[in-house]
Amino acid sequence: MSAVGGEPRNVRVELGARSYDILIGGGLVARAGGEIAARLPGVRAAIVTDRNVGGHHAGALAQSLEAAGIASTTIVVEPGERSKGFATLQEVVDGVLAARLERGDVVVALGGGVVGDLAGFVAGIVRRGMRFVQIPTSLLAQVDSSVGGKTGINTAHGKNLVGVFQQPALVLADTGVLDTLPEREFRAGYAEVAKYGLIDRPDFFAWLEENWRDVFAGGAARTHAIAESCRAKAEMVARDEFETGDRALLNLGHTFGHALEAATSYDSARLVHGEGVSIGMALAHRFSARLNLASPDDAVRVERHLRAVGLPVSVDEIPGELPGAERMLDYIAQDKKVSRGALTFILTRGIGQSFVARNVPASEVLSFLKEVLAS
Amino acid sequence: MSAVGGEPRNVRVELGARSYDILIGGGLVARAGGEIAARLPGVRAAIVTDRNVGGHHAGALAQSLEAAGIASTTIVVEPGERSKGFATLQEVVDGVLAARLERGDVVVALGGGVVGDLAGFVAGIVRRGMRFVQIPTSLLAQVDSSVGGKTGINTAHGKNLVGVFQQPALVLADTGVLDTLPEREFRAGYAEVAKYGLIDRPDFFAWLEENWRDVFAGGAARTHAIAESCRAKAEMVARDEFETGDRALLNLGHTFGHALEAATSYDSARLVHGEGVSIGMALAHRFSARLNLASPDDAVRVERHLRAVGLPVSVDEIPGELPGAERMLDYIAQDKKVSRGALTFILTRGIGQSFVARNVPASEVLSFLKEVLAS
Repeated sequence: MSAVGGEPRNVRVELGARSYDILIGGGLVARAGGEIAARLPGVRAAIVTDRNVGGHHAGALAQSLEAAGIASTTIVVEPGERSKGFATLQEVVDGVLAARLERGDVVVALGGGVVGDLAGFVAGIVRRGMRFVQIPTSLLAQVDSSVGGKTGINTAHGKNLVGVFQQPALVLADTGVLDTLPEREFRAGYAEVAKYGLIDRPDFFAWLEENWRDVFAGGAARTHAIAESCRAKAEMVARDEFETGDRALLNLGHTFGHALEAATSYDSARLVHGEGVSIGMALAHRFSARLNLASPDDAVRVERHLRAVGLPVSVDEIPGELPGAERMLDYIAQDKKVSRGALTFILTRGIGQSFVARNVPASEVLSFLKEVLAS
Repeated sequence: MSAVGGEPRNVRVELGARSYDILIGGGLVARAGGEIAARLPGVRAAIVTDRNVGGHHAGALAQSLEAAGIASTTIVVEPGERSKGFATLQEVVDGVLAARLERGDVVVALGGGVVGDLAGFVAGIVRRGMRFVQIPTSLLAQVDSSVGGKTGINTAHGKNLVGVFQQPALVLADTGVLDTLPEREFRAGYAEVAKYGLIDRPDFFAWLEENWRDVFAGGAARTHAIAESCRAKAEMVARDEFETGDRALLNLGHTFGHALEAATSYDSARLVHGEGVSIGMALAHRFSARLNLASPDDAVRVERHLRAVGLPVSVDEIPGELPGAERMLDYIAQDKKVSRGALTFILTRGIGQSFVARNVPASEVLSFLKEVLAS
C-alpha cells in the first residue's frame, strides 16, 4: 500500500512552456539529484532551507545533488514567518549572488511554506529570474504553497503583499518527511486538503470524511489525498495562472483566515495559517447560509468534519483576546484580495459549490462579524 | 519643425497581450493624465520620482492626473544611483502599500534610469505585479531604460543583479523636459542613440554623423533620433523579450562599460553610464579589429563621431587611477552577461554589423586590456 520506495505519483501542471511535474511519494529527497539533473542538465544549485528542516534533510539533499553532478551551496534561514521579510530576502539574495550562480542555475527550496515563498521570490528576482525547484516538507506546502508559482514576503502592511509569480521547474513532495511533522502542523495542513473538496470536489470531501484517519496515518491514503489536492490546485492554476478570475476560489476560508492571523499578530502559539483557514472555511459556510445562499446543514457538515480531525472552527477556540468587529473588518479590507474598495469573498451554494462573490456589502460582513465575535 | 504641442510620434512595442505605445513629443507630462486614463480607466496612481526631477515636473504631472480623474500620491527618493538598492526599494514599496493601491492601480516612474528601474521593480513585486507607466526625463532613459521592461536594483555584487521583467503599459517620452537636462547628461544619453546605429542600423549611424548637432539643438531632429532609437529597441525587445538571444546585442559597449563603472566605484564625477558605454563601444570596435573581425577603419570612424559630440572614447579620459588588467577582467567576469564561465562579448564585423560572440577566450580579453590600460 505504501508509496515509500515505489514509483512516485506524477501530477502535471499544464502551463504551456512553463509546464512542470509534481512528483508525490516516499524517498524523493534522496532521489532529488537525479530528478533535477534529468530536467535541468548542467545546473548548479543553491539550497534554501531553515535551521529545523535543514538539520534533518539538507545533508541528504546536497548528497543526492552531488551524486547527480550538481554542485550546491546551502543557505540557512531562521525557522518561522519572520524570515518572510525584506531583511532575510536580502540575505538570501546575497547568498545566491556570492555563490556566483547564473540565470540558468537553480534555487531549491527545502522546507515549508515560508522557505518556499521566500526562495521562490529570490529565484524570481536574482538576475531577473533563475530556475526554481520546490521540495516542500510540510503538508501545507505540499498541497498548497509549492504549487502554482505564488511567491513573496510579508510587510508591515500585511502578508504576501510583495512577491512575484515564479513557477517552479519541478515539485518534489516527499511523503516520508511528513512522518516527523508535529501533529498540529500536519492537521493545519489538512485544512487546505479539505478546502479542495469544499471548493468544487464534493466527492473528494465525502472521501475525506470517510478516510481522514488513514490520511493522518500515512501510506497510500495520504499519498492519494496529497495527489488529489495537487491535481485540484494544478487545474485551477492552469485555468488562471495570474489570478484574474477563478483562481481566487483557492482563497476559500482565507479572507476570514488572514484577518484572524493578523488579529493574532501571526503568533503561531495562538493560531497557525491552516487553523485560520479552518475557522475561515467554517465562517464562509456560515456566512453563506446567513445570506441564504446555502443550506445551514452544509455549514454544520463542514464544521463536523473539521472538528473531527481536531481543527478549530470557531473564533472562541483561539486563545487570548480578539479585536472587535470594526477592527476585524479593517483587517479584511486591507487584504490584497479587496478590489476597488468592494469586498470580495469566496462564498458557497453548498459543499463543493464555492464561487467568487464580488461586491459583498461591508455592512453585511460587519454584522456577521459582530455576531461571530459576540458568541 | 518642432513637435512641441503637436501630435506625438507613436512607436508600438509589439509583445502580444503586453504590447504598449511609446509616445514621443513635446508637452507629454502635461498630457499624461489623459493618455493614462484612456488606456487604464479607473486607476489610482503612485508617482515615483527623485528630488531633482520631482521639483521640476511632479506638480504638473499630479495636476494632469487629477484633471483626468486619477488620484495620486507622490513618493520622492534621493537622486542618484544609491537609490537603486534594497533600502530605497523597501521605502517605495512601503509608500505604495501605505497609499493602499491595489493590483490594478499604476506606478508612474517620473525620472531618469534610476527612478525607472526602481519604480518598475516596485510595480513588478507589489501585490505580485501592478500596472506601470514610464515618464523618462533623461535622454538615456527615453531611448534605453524606459523601453523593454528590464527593471531592478544594484547589490554589492554588481549592478542590476536583482530585478524583474515588467513591461510598462505606456511610455511617455516628453522631449521638452530634455531642455533642462545638463549638457553632460544629454551627451551621455546620446551614446545609447549612437549604439542603435552601430548594432544594426548603419544608415542611422550615418544620419547621426550628419545631423548630431540638430539632435543636440532639439526640435524635429531630436524627436526623430529618439523615435528611431525607441523603434530599434522595440524591435529587439519584441524579438527576444527575456534576453535569451539577440536582445544581448543591446549590450554593445556595456561589458567594458559596466566594468569601467565598477572600477570607478560608480562615481559619477568620474564616469557616468553613457560615458562608460561610449568608451565601451570604442573598445568593442577596437577589440573586434584586433581579432581581425572588422576593419580598423570602422573603429576609427566610431571614435571620430563619439569624440565629435564630446564623448570619451579612451580609458585615459577617465580622471583618477584605474585598476590593472587582471582586476578589470574580474569586473568583467562578474558581469551577469557571463554564461558558464565563458566570456560573452558583443563584437562587430563593421558599422551596424554587431553580433553576440560567446566563448571569447579570457586570455585574449586580458591581453587587450593590458594594451588598453598601458596606453
